[in-house]
Amino acid sequence: MMTPLRVGIAGLGTVGTSVVRLLDRQRQALAARTGREIEVKAVSARDRDRDRGIDLSRFAWIADPVALAALDDIDVFVELIGGEEGAARTSVEAAIKAGKSVVTANKALLAKHGMELARAAEAKGVALAFEASVAGGIPVIKTLREGLSGNAIERVYGILNGTCNYILSRMETEKLSFAACLREAQELGYAEADPTFDIGGFDTAHKLAILTALAFGTTIDPDAIAIEGIESITLADLDAAAELGYRVKLLGVAQRTASGIEQRVHPTMVPKSSAIAQIMGVINAVSINADAVHELTLAGPGAGGEATASAVVADLADLARGLNIAPFGLPVADLTGLQRAPLQMHEGGYYVRLSVHNRPGAAAAIATRMAENGISLESIVQRNAAGLRGKPAAPDPVPVVLITYATYEKTIRQALDSVVADGYLAEKPQLIRIERE
Amino acid sequence: MMTPLRVGIAGLGTVGTSVVRLLDRQRQALAARTGREIEVKAVSARDRDRDRGIDLSRFAWIADPVALAALDDIDVFVELIGGEEGAARTSVEAAIKAGKSVVTANKALLAKHGMELARAAEAKGVALAFEASVAGGIPVIKTLREGLSGNAIERVYGILNGTCNYILSRMETEKLSFAACLREAQELGYAEADPTFDIGGFDTAHKLAILTALAFGTTIDPDAIAIEGIESITLADLDAAAELGYRVKLLGVAQRTASGIEQRVHPTMVPKSSAIAQIMGVINAVSINADAVHELTLAGPGAGGEATASAVVADLADLARGLNIAPFGLPVADLTGLQRAPLQMHEGGYYVRLSVHNRPGAAAAIATRMAENGISLESIVQRNAAGLRGKPAAPDPVPVVLITYATYEKTIRQALDSVVADGYLAEKPQLIRIERE
Repeated sequence: MMTPLRVGIAGLGTVGTSVVRLLDRQRQALAARTGREIEVKAVSARDRDRDRGIDLSRFAWIADPVALAALDDIDVFVELIGGEEGAARTSVEAAIKAGKSVVTANKALLAKHGMELARAAEAKGVALAFEASVAGGIPVIKTLREGLSGNAIERVYGILNGTCNYILSRMETEKLSFAACLREAQELGYAEADPTFDIGGFDTAHKLAILTALAFGTTIDPDAIAIEGIESITLADLDAAAELGYRVKLLGVAQRTASGIEQRVHPTMVPKSSAIAQIMGVINAVSINADAVHELTLAGPGAGGEATASAVVADLADLARGLNIAPFGLPVADLTGLQRAPLQMHEGGYYVRLSVHNRPGAAAAIATRMAENGISLESIVQRNAAGLRGKPAAPDPVPVVLITYATYEKTIRQALDSVVADGYLAEKPQLIRIERE
Repeated sequence: MMTPLRVGIAGLGTVGTSVVRLLDRQRQALAARTGREIEVKAVSARDRDRDRGIDLSRFAWIADPVALAALDDIDVFVELIGGEEGAARTSVEAAIKAGKSVVTANKALLAKHGMELARAAEAKGVALAFEASVAGGIPVIKTLREGLSGNAIERVYGILNGTCNYILSRMETEKLSFAACLREAQELGYAEADPTFDIGGFDTAHKLAILTALAFGTTIDPDAIAIEGIESITLADLDAAAELGYRVKLLGVAQRTASGIEQRVHPTMVPKSSAIAQIMGVINAVSINADAVHELTLAGPGAGGEATASAVVADLADLARGLNIAPFGLPVADLTGLQRAPLQMHEGGYYVRLSVHNRPGAAAAIATRMAENGISLESIVQRNAAGLRGKPAAPDPVPVVLITYATYEKTIRQALDSVVADGYLAEKPQLIRIERE
């Protein structure tokens, strides 16, 4: 048996302590599988005294993660501090500079500094592994980088944020408001006190940026992603979706087009019978369309200490086996610059929910604006309209739901701008893309 | 750039020609991803003159695959001949003996001779790679062997035969008989002229045997698998399943139990809302339950030239990168002998369809036999019984459908043996296990 792979871990939150626990539990199996012991030598965290339920006295305690990163007696630095700057960044840079391989779960760091870190790692001949950074326990990085080596990838899309999927699932199944489900997610520890990062779609965008680079061999450009969150989704939207045979999911989508790579994060109506619609709760799923394999879907836990630790430990096992692949599949010099493609013709059409002031001619005016922009309507539904059902007073505003046929993102936005300018609307229009399979 | 990885391919059917095509199409990308060219040097097949739509004149033609396997100027031998004996076996053995790495899609060969081949490969220090042997384009071997290195696996199960899933899907959606759907599958090239191997569950069993070894670190024992095919599934069963909220799927299941590894292949009723129930047509899916990652599901094409070639090429790319892992994750010497566990308590209970001679007391006799064996019934449904619905003549036999609560495989079999012995049945009882999630 070879000498042990010596590991330093910075960050002992849920994931960090799970990594220690997993390495303990699988000690023998990992040694048998990789031919080497994987041995934690030193750890670092903010609070030394917190009870984490594991015995840390066997490891050296190094208060400063940057010092830990450069420690002589470690081969691999595991960064689980989090954040795109600060200690996470400086310690990873220090580790690479000192010739250590790095394993990280930090999607924000990679989305922002992935290219320069990969370049530095390549120059030093060390590995930069980050299976845990996207979709937690799902081995999607390995699948894209190794499992599909023989494929040209056309599209990657998926449910990449468990918090959003939990909220949307609970709203639908329990008929609860967005706010109530968010509060529930916070109580259960699925959402942060400031949930903007998750529900605004930014976490999904970071993960998508990493997947895009791996799938298409392009440099990372997180600013090239069109991002919409789930904050504006109401129970009314989910009910309308259900009536039409759809569910609403927050999807991250990256797609090769003639004019470059299209990247978008937004709520999407997917057919209830589709595989992606079955993904409920905190589960993540990634689908990959590629020329040889057609379509591959991976589903599993996108977060949680043990699941994320599973990915960290798999990376460590690969390093113990001597695997050292270019972090993004290709040497950074071979990645092509990301060309941002405009949002394409949306084949599935759009769901539009308008809150319309109850004035004569409103529906006609809306339909006219659509027609002017060449948008065909599959349906237009106005409920509780004035004078209908013998109601004494006309409610105001009234909801109007339109379903369009395929049209361009730009066109529908333009049409809605005209509708807004006409002054009939009481609220910002709600727009959800439909995927019809 | 390093010297090219030189490849010899034996077998130029759909998969073999797709491998050549894929290596052509992805030549540059593969070189960039692996740092080496992957170059086919020589090929072998039964018929040299058949038009395969690819230019073979650039490769040496070696009529004898055993000679090809030992050729000086190849590094890797790709075996796509098929069959557990004959040329497939002798050529793979010859390649290993000559110090070549082997890539194969041959599940039958691996299920029967996998242990001795792995031992020989390890002794020679060469790789034996077989991603294409299970679930076609789905990278399940890599996921089990590398992606889940930090997990103890509890269960692996899935839809591993596209032919069976196609037939069951068509029966359900088109209300066609088993025979009609089988004929259709044969016409479409999804099923062989002699379909026994697929529909009898044997193909699923071969794949399951390989997954079991990888998942649990045990030696392969294909004879330890309890196998039932789908031949006896009727439209009546699918209709009854649908009424209860289930679909019927042929599953392969391997599970760690206190008394060893339970391995079984049989039709199973799965809830319509479950992820596995959404897998329709020739698609395969594998779910893995493991301690850290909880549940991971991979779905994709289980067969077809390009999808299977995708897996072969991924193995070649791994070899080009220098990856050489023990074929079954652990050195053969470290695999534990497979201890066959008896079929366990089946938590989900059973669906039993009986064809009962319409005699007074039949239903009561059946219910009594169940009670004698301690089996609780969730429901018993007898349709078109004599005297009901004012029908003039009592039909004979009549179908009786029982749904049991959890019971042991042995117990339900014993109870049904008693029912058969009572002489009320016109046909062999139909028994389908229910999985309730």
